[in-house]
Amino acid sequence: MNFTERLRDVQRNRTSLLCVGLDTDRGKLPASLRAYEDPIFEFNRRIIEATHDLVCAYKINLAFYEVTGEHGWRTVHRTLSVIPKEIVTIGDAKRGDIGNSSAMYAQALAQDYGFTASTVNPYMGFDSVEPFLARPEQGAFILAVTSNPGARDFQYAKIDGRPLYERVIKKARAWNRSKNIGLVVGATRPKEMHTIRQMVPDMPILIPGIGAQGGDLKAAVRYGCDRNGELGIINASRSVIFSSSGDDFAEAARAAAVKLRDEINQYRDTYF
Amino acid sequence: MNFTERLRDVQRNRTSLLCVGLDTDRGKLPASLRAYEDPIFEFNRRIIEATHDLVCAYKINLAFYEVTGEHGWRTVHRTLSVIPKEIVTIGDAKRGDIGNSSAMYAQALAQDYGFTASTVNPYMGFDSVEPFLARPEQGAFILAVTSNPGARDFQYAKIDGRPLYERVIKKARAWNRSKNIGLVVGATRPKEMHTIRQMVPDMPILIPGIGAQGGDLKAAVRYGCDRNGELGIINASRSVIFSSSGDDFAEAARAAAVKLRDEINQYRDTYF
Repeated sequence: MNFTERLRDVQRNRTSLLCVGLDTDRGKLPASLRAYEDPIFEFNRRIIEATHDLVCAYKINLAFYEVTGEHGWRTVHRTLSVIPKEIVTIGDAKRGDIGNSSAMYAQALAQDYGFTASTVNPYMGFDSVEPFLARPEQGAFILAVTSNPGARDFQYAKIDGRPLYERVIKKARAWNRSKNIGLVVGATRPKEMHTIRQMVPDMPILIPGIGAQGGDLKAAVRYGCDRNGELGIINASRSVIFSSSGDDFAEAARAAAVKLRDEINQYRDTYF
Repeated sequence: MNFTERLRDVQRNRTSLLCVGLDTDRGKLPASLRAYEDPIFEFNRRIIEATHDLVCAYKINLAFYEVTGEHGWRTVHRTLSVIPKEIVTIGDAKRGDIGNSSAMYAQALAQDYGFTASTVNPYMGFDSVEPFLARPEQGAFILAVTSNPGARDFQYAKIDGRPLYERVIKKARAWNRSKNIGLVVGATRPKEMHTIRQMVPDMPILIPGIGAQGGDLKAAVRYGCDRNGELGIINASRSVIFSSSGDDFAEAARAAAVKLRDEINQYRDTYF
């Protein structure tokens, strides 16, 4: 089963397009977790326990783990080990290097950690992305239009009248022989999302930028999904996991995730 | 002292533009190192011992360490601890993410590891690069034209008649208030190097692609250096560190490094 089918399956089985981003900032953990040997893991474990029936995916932003130094690797590993197997796991690493180096990153993310999918930066072109495509059942989300202000610096540069990100998408489409490529398109870009979904009717789109970044949820669902109201993956990180800073953080995260999943599903009912 | 001055100083003091890339592929280590608790560190330690008087910089490609899993972080740390303080250390990580995530990567590379400089991917724009510029004495090498075949996919796309990488360079120039930005330009791109050096007469250029990738050393020196024959950093990885696969690997690496440093200096004498 290729990655696209796998994603579709889990979204149907769970009636959810929600992805919870485990951007677990160690500076924001409740004080009561400090006693644990690995507070970040303990936080993640409880968030996963409280939300796993509500999501199609978890996204782990590696930046938040690398910054913890020596124990980051183990924390990621332990976190992945408590996520039910059916759920898609996205290693949000935004890697990309020359072929032989990218092969090492792909091995670290897809084989050693065992993420179902990774995010990849397209700037260095095909041989930097290729190692992430080796297994049809594992996916690569290529950065197209990102949610941050800096996206304007290069992604919108006009090539023959069309923005650079459209060239990235056209290449991604051409490289997608195993149906395991997806795109990253920020929820802060609703108009672009509309055009992009028309360019790639059957490709998964990972949509960050809801919540703290102020993205447009309705447009993300309406334009980010395929014709069946699927294959859009709506990510929320801070707005879910740090919904409460107290000891009720897991219950609060669950409440925020239920609310978001249901809101997404209402928009799906409206538009599909 | 800003990063550019710091680099110039070490290149003058050592009469060397050579950077040795510690792309230490664990599959290529001599069998005799297997008995060590951390064979990659032991290999690096001996390479550094044998070459530190010949280089201005060491470049550590994080991909080769992340692929080793749990111990990668410690191996990088230990390797950095045996590099003499004057020598520039480059964390070749090619990171880039939205502002708050990029800040974590910058902290991991520049503060926790303590690299003198890091490589950064420009695709996500200014807020993804900014955290790497916070300390004038620490540098950020922004990917401009890379040495790999995939560079053609996007970096050469024409915007108003000029390639995307030139837009990246113009932005890098505008962002360079603290004189701590450099560029990455592959040695496989001699013509582009020539144009680029005219665009940035005073900016460090990190030049990979010599050796295994077949880059043009003469052109790298001639066009990669500033008007004083400085600020080009010529990187060689595999062709130096894996010069011999036997127990004489350190001596062989030294011999390869001496040869390369001298060849570079001969071209400097010719052109500057």
